[in-house]
Amino acid sequence: MKSDIAISQSACLSAITDVAAAAGIQPQELIPQGQYKAKLSYSLLNRASNAPQGKLVLVTAITPTPLGEGKTVTTIGLSQGLKAIGKKVMACIRQPSMGPVFGVKGGAAGGGYSQVAPMEELNLHLTGDIHAVTAAHNLAAAAIDARLYHELRHGEAFEAKTGMTPLGLQADSVVWGRVVDMNDRALRKITIGQNEPGKTINGIERESGFDISAASELMAILALASDLKDLRARLGRVVLAYSKTGQPVTAEDIGVAGAMAAILRDAAQPTLMQSLEGVPTLVHAGPFANIAHGNSSIIADRMALGLADVVVTEAGFGSDMGFEKACNIKARAAGRGPDAAVVVATLRGLKANSGRYDLRPGQPLPESIFNEDAEALAGGFANLKWHIDNAARYGVPVVVALNRFPDDSDAELQWLADKVKEAGAQVALSEAFAKGGEGAIELAQAVMAALSQPAQFAPLYQCEQPLEHKLLTMAEVAYGGSGIELSEQAKADIERLTELGYGDLPVCMAKTPLSISHDPALKGVPTDFVVPVRGLRLCAGAGFIYVLTGNVMTMPGLPEKPAYLSIDIDEDGNIVGIDE
Amino acid sequence: MKSDIAISQSACLSAITDVAAAAGIQPQELIPQGQYKAKLSYSLLNRASNAPQGKLVLVTAITPTPLGEGKTVTTIGLSQGLKAIGKKVMACIRQPSMGPVFGVKGGAAGGGYSQVAPMEELNLHLTGDIHAVTAAHNLAAAAIDARLYHELRHGEAFEAKTGMTPLGLQADSVVWGRVVDMNDRALRKITIGQNEPGKTINGIERESGFDISAASELMAILALASDLKDLRARLGRVVLAYSKTGQPVTAEDIGVAGAMAAILRDAAQPTLMQSLEGVPTLVHAGPFANIAHGNSSIIADRMALGLADVVVTEAGFGSDMGFEKACNIKARAAGRGPDAAVVVATLRGLKANSGRYDLRPGQPLPESIFNEDAEALAGGFANLKWHIDNAARYGVPVVVALNRFPDDSDAELQWLADKVKEAGAQVALSEAFAKGGEGAIELAQAVMAALSQPAQFAPLYQCEQPLEHKLLTMAEVAYGGSGIELSEQAKADIERLTELGYGDLPVCMAKTPLSISHDPALKGVPTDFVVPVRGLRLCAGAGFIYVLTGNVMTMPGLPEKPAYLSIDIDEDGNIVGIDE
Repeated sequence: MKSDIAISQSACLSAITDVAAAAGIQPQELIPQGQYKAKLSYSLLNRASNAPQGKLVLVTAITPTPLGEGKTVTTIGLSQGLKAIGKKVMACIRQPSMGPVFGVKGGAAGGGYSQVAPMEELNLHLTGDIHAVTAAHNLAAAAIDARLYHELRHGEAFEAKTGMTPLGLQADSVVWGRVVDMNDRALRKITIGQNEPGKTINGIERESGFDISAASELMAILALASDLKDLRARLGRVVLAYSKTGQPVTAEDIGVAGAMAAILRDAAQPTLMQSLEGVPTLVHAGPFANIAHGNSSIIADRMALGLADVVVTEAGFGSDMGFEKACNIKARAAGRGPDAAVVVATLRGLKANSGRYDLRPGQPLPESIFNEDAEALAGGFANLKWHIDNAARYGVPVVVALNRFPDDSDAELQWLADKVKEAGAQVALSEAFAKGGEGAIELAQAVMAALSQPAQFAPLYQCEQPLEHKLLTMAEVAYGGSGIELSEQAKADIERLTELGYGDLPVCMAKTPLSISHDPALKGVPTDFVVPVRGLRLCAGAGFIYVLTGNVMTMPGLPEKPAYLSIDIDEDGNIVGIDE
Repeated sequence: MKSDIAISQSACLSAITDVAAAAGIQPQELIPQGQYKAKLSYSLLNRASNAPQGKLVLVTAITPTPLGEGKTVTTIGLSQGLKAIGKKVMACIRQPSMGPVFGVKGGAAGGGYSQVAPMEELNLHLTGDIHAVTAAHNLAAAAIDARLYHELRHGEAFEAKTGMTPLGLQADSVVWGRVVDMNDRALRKITIGQNEPGKTINGIERESGFDISAASELMAILALASDLKDLRARLGRVVLAYSKTGQPVTAEDIGVAGAMAAILRDAAQPTLMQSLEGVPTLVHAGPFANIAHGNSSIIADRMALGLADVVVTEAGFGSDMGFEKACNIKARAAGRGPDAAVVVATLRGLKANSGRYDLRPGQPLPESIFNEDAEALAGGFANLKWHIDNAARYGVPVVVALNRFPDDSDAELQWLADKVKEAGAQVALSEAFAKGGEGAIELAQAVMAALSQPAQFAPLYQCEQPLEHKLLTMAEVAYGGSGIELSEQAKADIERLTELGYGDLPVCMAKTPLSISHDPALKGVPTDFVVPVRGLRLCAGAGFIYVLTGNVMTMPGLPEKPAYLSIDIDEDGNIVGIDE
């Protein structure tokens, strides 16, 4: 089979104006960006909100292996399958970070014959939204450091000189770092504001660091804002620092929130693309699924739900991660939850979840994983069963998509399908990678059957409950653990955030995706574990508190042989070597 | 009169497709980016190169005051004046940095009724070119730091592990910093690669810093590349570090140049916009005019010269800066120089150049500058006369544009016009700010008269001359000084760069724009000064060596009351408060 980029570049795509027209988007609602991309105007948001609403299908997965289960392939494939059976469908996906494209190979456009195209544009700048997030984030960083500098430099004279009330900033109380959309480990921990001996013009020296842009709170805000007005208000609430007396200093306090909104104005409009089979696909926002909620935007969902009968979207990692956050964080902000869940599973992924194999990205698969192995599969099925039950916990019907690989055993697939049916979920094979929408017709039919069932969506806790109670609910109900262990720091954080009035925010668990528990070594369905809580971090603009249960890496590095080695342009200016 | 943004937002603009069609751009050569912006495809470059070539008018100025002389206003106004008298005209301008928009007020779109529109799009992201420069630059930075880390980490085992030959990198021999399009003084001097005690995973600790993106060598490359193939080759030649033995380590050596080209591919296409009176305007690249050459791109010029009869472009600062670099650096790379020069002067600017006034941005003008002051004007005229002669030195006819302000004295303007005529140059009043193209008809006619004269363009020196000889030529012939004084560092740099084979590159003088000399305190026409040369820096990709004659600030800071305080979005999503 051809490489992903070869398939993408040889595809016969429609002009984006035609894709838009077929989707019911009016010409004045479309802002073309070249031939195959377009921004959707805010005016569409109002119209879509007043239109009959479609159904929202949320694609999640078993506990992921380092190779991935094909969640985006299934999201795009399912939408193509729905189109093939005559449904009016749209897909909503996250915008991939550009930085990692140059690190370890692998795009985020789906793959095979279930891709969003052109894949090189999706994987590089797209329409510049991540650049805008980076710029708005770094403007806030420059602004708070400049304010710190000027307040300390002028001292008592600050107010007289500027007419502005001093905020009482200190070097060690700035909590806002900087971001860059690049894998750059050297920026994880840095010292800024250094001066030549005897000088002070470069500001106040302090420790800081860069995260990758997807980890910016502004990316979460872009994904959670319901409209431009809400975006502006959320930007104002972002906390950049604390005063000497412990009071939060927000972007509104230093007067930078309006300029941040100006930088983000166009980024708040979703980008329309198309799948290889012409499914209109909205690409918008790409927040992390640990320190943030790992779902594409509410604005995109709102537009799509007013245009299509069925909208397929996806959430990061397994159902304990992005799906949980979609239900407990995104759904609250959106005012609606999903109408059905699709859990993606693969034979090799389930076997890996048995703990009997050691799969690593960039390394060849062990031959043995292609052999039939009933015990490994049975061990892995327990993990799938947990994710089925987990999705059902939120009151939505569940369909399992078995993402088939060419060498998969028919007998094992049949065994698995029978087990899923026993567990009470719908099940369908998906051959979307190799066959596109035609390979997902069975899945599409199963999803339509699920959507005909009544859904009783409900999140897992009430926001008004105390923070500690919400953490206990996550550990015990969401993960099946036996409690939490709060560090001294975590206890102090809970007390402080509650006092400051942020105790009503939902919690966003920053935990490993590689286990249902907090511990990546615990495979299958862990029980009897206590979730350690190391600390809590406020994202007042995004509207959640993220909870550290372990080390979270928010800035990747480049490996010895990075993917950039093979990326280039050819004589005609085509981009080559991405994901080959 | 209304504010610039109010004029811009109330303008009746044409669809960019109509602007393009009127300019002779074919539909398949146009890549629209919304209604009022479009990228121009590379296919146009080939067609334009084979078309009859237009004339190139280069707008420069007297020694600038902190308030600016209205060079962009005159560039756009002149192009509108040329359109008004029936000429087929295009303008080519630089893309302004976004960062400074949030610092000190003042856009870079021109002003009044001679603006490029929409001005808020020009001043913010435009079509993302600066973001692409930033990303490509920072990919190279991450790549060289990652290579340093992996080489030192694996030591002898590096080659066996990776199959790549070690480059002998050392922490103190990386010369490539990072960039961000933001005014952020805290990033000028930083320490990167810091680790928690006992750990090494964040790389190799070393001192480094960020420049603003306009100061990136990649911005100069974008402006100097003649086509995409040349761009790719120049990226490969960029020097990121030196090996233990002093050999340059290029982007090609570490295999990152192709990925940088992929990131920059779309940015290498100029952006078509329009002036308020519909002049097609190409916006492309914005390199500094001290450590780089301060001119918009060769690719944009090439496209425009194949489409229009007259192309108006501008160069940064006074004629000793951007204009000199246009003649000695850009013209060599382009294979053609300007056909005429326009020197912009204002009464207040000439008076300021007399040294009798102290003008500062953001502070009100002294009342006295509006009064007639024959002595101050006569003192300032010497500066104008120098710039007229300087432009003529390169063999091109000169037109002086007197950029009129409402309160200017008619008697003083008349005196000045007479003096300019005595000096042998054409002269015309320009009222382009207040009246648009109608206010620049006289100027347009003077420029057409100048273009009818034979031009004998020639740069000032031959590249094959030794570096020291080229520096002497700059000090004595280009500035009228009496020699150079080389520091020990400069002598060592000259020897080293010559040995490495870079001695044939042209020199790019990084000196103050506020005096014809190296010393900002020397007003009018300084003589008897010796230019100190502190050091030389290689830009092998851009193809010049920049020469430090003083401190050059490559990262601005935010002031106490930054411009961002007034910038916001309104309820309809319009951007407000830029340049008001």
